[in-house]
Amino acid sequence: MTEHRDAEADATEDDFQLSRHDLNAIERAIDEGDGPLLDALLDPVHAADIADLIEQLTPQRRREFLQLYSGEIDGDILTEIDESIREEVIEQLPRAVLAEAVREMDSDDVVDLIEDMEAPEQQAILAALDDSDRAAVEQSLTYPEYSAGRLMQSEVVTAPEHWTVGETIDFLRQEDWLPDQFYHVVLVDPRRHPTGYVTLGKLLASRRHIPLRDITEDSFRTISARQDEGDVAYAFNKYHLISAPVVDDHDRLVGIITIDDAMSVLDEEHEEDFLRMARVSDESHVSDGPLQTARQRLPWLVINLFTASLSALVISRFEATVAQLVILAALMPIVASTGGIAGTQSLAVAVRALATRELTSGNARRVILRELAAGLLNGLGLAVILFLAGTFILGAPMIGVVLGMAMIANQIVAATGGVLVPLGLSRLGLDPALASGTFVTTMTDMMGFFAFLGLATWMLI
Amino acid sequence: MTEHRDAEADATEDDFQLSRHDLNAIERAIDEGDGPLLDALLDPVHAADIADLIEQLTPQRRREFLQLYSGEIDGDILTEIDESIREEVIEQLPRAVLAEAVREMDSDDVVDLIEDMEAPEQQAILAALDDSDRAAVEQSLTYPEYSAGRLMQSEVVTAPEHWTVGETIDFLRQEDWLPDQFYHVVLVDPRRHPTGYVTLGKLLASRRHIPLRDITEDSFRTISARQDEGDVAYAFNKYHLISAPVVDDHDRLVGIITIDDAMSVLDEEHEEDFLRMARVSDESHVSDGPLQTARQRLPWLVINLFTASLSALVISRFEATVAQLVILAALMPIVASTGGIAGTQSLAVAVRALATRELTSGNARRVILRELAAGLLNGLGLAVILFLAGTFILGAPMIGVVLGMAMIANQIVAATGGVLVPLGLSRLGLDPALASGTFVTTMTDMMGFFAFLGLATWMLI
Repeated sequence: MTEHRDAEADATEDDFQLSRHDLNAIERAIDEGDGPLLDALLDPVHAADIADLIEQLTPQRRREFLQLYSGEIDGDILTEIDESIREEVIEQLPRAVLAEAVREMDSDDVVDLIEDMEAPEQQAILAALDDSDRAAVEQSLTYPEYSAGRLMQSEVVTAPEHWTVGETIDFLRQEDWLPDQFYHVVLVDPRRHPTGYVTLGKLLASRRHIPLRDITEDSFRTISARQDEGDVAYAFNKYHLISAPVVDDHDRLVGIITIDDAMSVLDEEHEEDFLRMARVSDESHVSDGPLQTARQRLPWLVINLFTASLSALVISRFEATVAQLVILAALMPIVASTGGIAGTQSLAVAVRALATRELTSGNARRVILRELAAGLLNGLGLAVILFLAGTFILGAPMIGVVLGMAMIANQIVAATGGVLVPLGLSRLGLDPALASGTFVTTMTDMMGFFAFLGLATWMLI
Repeated sequence: MTEHRDAEADATEDDFQLSRHDLNAIERAIDEGDGPLLDALLDPVHAADIADLIEQLTPQRRREFLQLYSGEIDGDILTEIDESIREEVIEQLPRAVLAEAVREMDSDDVVDLIEDMEAPEQQAILAALDDSDRAAVEQSLTYPEYSAGRLMQSEVVTAPEHWTVGETIDFLRQEDWLPDQFYHVVLVDPRRHPTGYVTLGKLLASRRHIPLRDITEDSFRTISARQDEGDVAYAFNKYHLISAPVVDDHDRLVGIITIDDAMSVLDEEHEEDFLRMARVSDESHVSDGPLQTARQRLPWLVINLFTASLSALVISRFEATVAQLVILAALMPIVASTGGIAGTQSLAVAVRALATRELTSGNARRVILRELAAGLLNGLGLAVILFLAGTFILGAPMIGVVLGMAMIANQIVAATGGVLVPLGLSRLGLDPALASGTFVTTMTDMMGFFAFLGLATWMLI
């Protein structure tokens, strides 16, 4: 049965990763210390899949793997390895292998690799680079973390703006360095201000005498090196950019960002929001050990202990009521928890809409009113169900009325709180995904217990 | 104060969107019915920003806007408009404008536009297309929704595999149709099987006599037209693909997918997961009205009403205990709610790890044990805090002991449930983001109340 299930799971899994079968063979080669077999098995495998493999091995096997395979680790593999274990891998690489790997990498990948290292380790890697590559990496590092300046690569293909198609093609044919991947030739004026760009497709399809100026793209826009990388990813996705020149504070070309890097950033930003909403550190990783996992999650659990104590305080005010009518204790979580769900729903929509800039100062008022109305409507709907349940299941219509009224109040608080809290955090310049959930569920818990027990005290006792 | 805040908000908002100032001018032009002014204001604006504008207008202004501006709506704008209001916009467009807009669009954008339409409306749009474009769109529509076949564009630049660089460049210069954006020339054999591709950069940098075969890229991989679009986006991000040829069941080239489309899919898949985890329909949109919003959210609220009733049932079994020691009613939500947070944390990590294929049948056992250990550790940590709080704040050490023991049990259930539930759903072929949250919080609520009240009955009464 287990085998059958594994086979099924693999069928959906193995399109873009190593198959379970290959993985087993590789693990056997590691366990037997068979380096040549390992090399042969990994020869056809994509660098990204080798990086995945390294991440998925147990720490013990990973060490053995690196002893057998470290000579083969190149820039492509190193770039792909997740930050969570990259340091561990680098420490085990022979100096010469590391230096060679780094020399192969584009400047943006080197920056990504060394930006979190201690100064001495950074220096050791920088020393392995050519002068011009080192200068490019050092320039990138002068820009803030998570900025376009860190994301860009300095290798840009440029042409003077007065060139023709023919001149450009001749230049490209002569040039002995060209980036691995490039999609545009950037036109620059004599002071190196980018003034437009031409796609390689247009360059190939146009006759030699055509001036570059006549075939530039409308989509051209430059990005400031200080721009946040999340905004850059947003712009790439929104405007369907393929590459965008990066300029310094004087509008001079300093590098270029390509869409594959923007796509990685978009992916990371989404992952971060997703994990933050669930109150998990965005450093969490499936390869973390139990201690690390526990430590990453504990802070929010402790915070929740305090916010839950606030709810306990609210409930304790109504001990006399609960003592008289113990069924209230059983029913009170219903209002609080349904409020929590509604708050999370409203919150999720607001956080996304802030991230995609669909929720702006221009329509905030309308969205808040929309949430208020939706909360009222759902509160009414749920109240009807609760009234019927109170009447026909519990045989206590008045309890149904109290449940229903508390539910209406809490649904309104949940829906409006779900949009007001992230809006407020965002106005304060804070990440709305980070703390909103705790604020909102604390509100809905306290309101849920207070409204239900308060109304019960007033109407039933 | 309000004005000051708005200015601040705008400063962070307006890099990649219309400024509040421009928006006000546009709204004034709409309200005054000034078509020529509106045209002038929108002339320099990117199609994506015009689409955003249309989405953000109130429904009333949107109608007025479309009356003034519908003649200017082109394929670029139409492609960018969110599905939630696209139908509304299309209905107001004059037939001739719509036909012209559709003729400009790439085949993948036409497919995206018409795939959700009723048959007669689809036919009306298909009729506006050239025969070859129509055939391409109809072929795409034969593939399942959300498949690579729907995402691809049929406009591919190909070359016979025996051509040289010179022959290819001459061919491109003669060709009078070429896609707006293309990044590779795909090599095909006589039966139209793709056998490799060449980047335009290599084509430009190589001498005319070089055979294409000698400068193909290692990154080449084809995608089956039946592949799920989410998997396609995953592959683009993982392997840094820029474009990938799409093949039919006989391995024949039928189209190509470019990275900008893959990036949109990645963005949508993330958004879907984010909203689903929060139990919101992924159709939710900031421009929805209150009724629509309420209706989208009600189903999960009603489901929660039932699951919360299960918790109420658990509590009601302990009414005698609560009646004897009313403070238990105040304390019991602490264990349940902290368990809910822990469950959500574990769940979020597992759902992401499944999406990124970092959690596989190969390491599932290790991750489950890791969660079990992390749950135990955090349970112990929280138990110490609760014991101290029980002793020094409540002056009731035994209540602290009961709280702590219940917390340990519930943290273990939460952490392991958070990974077992999504794993189970994924094995069943269901989306782990969709229903996991409800399962897990129902488990942690019931376990939280049961463990706390059960232990209290046993140890305190």
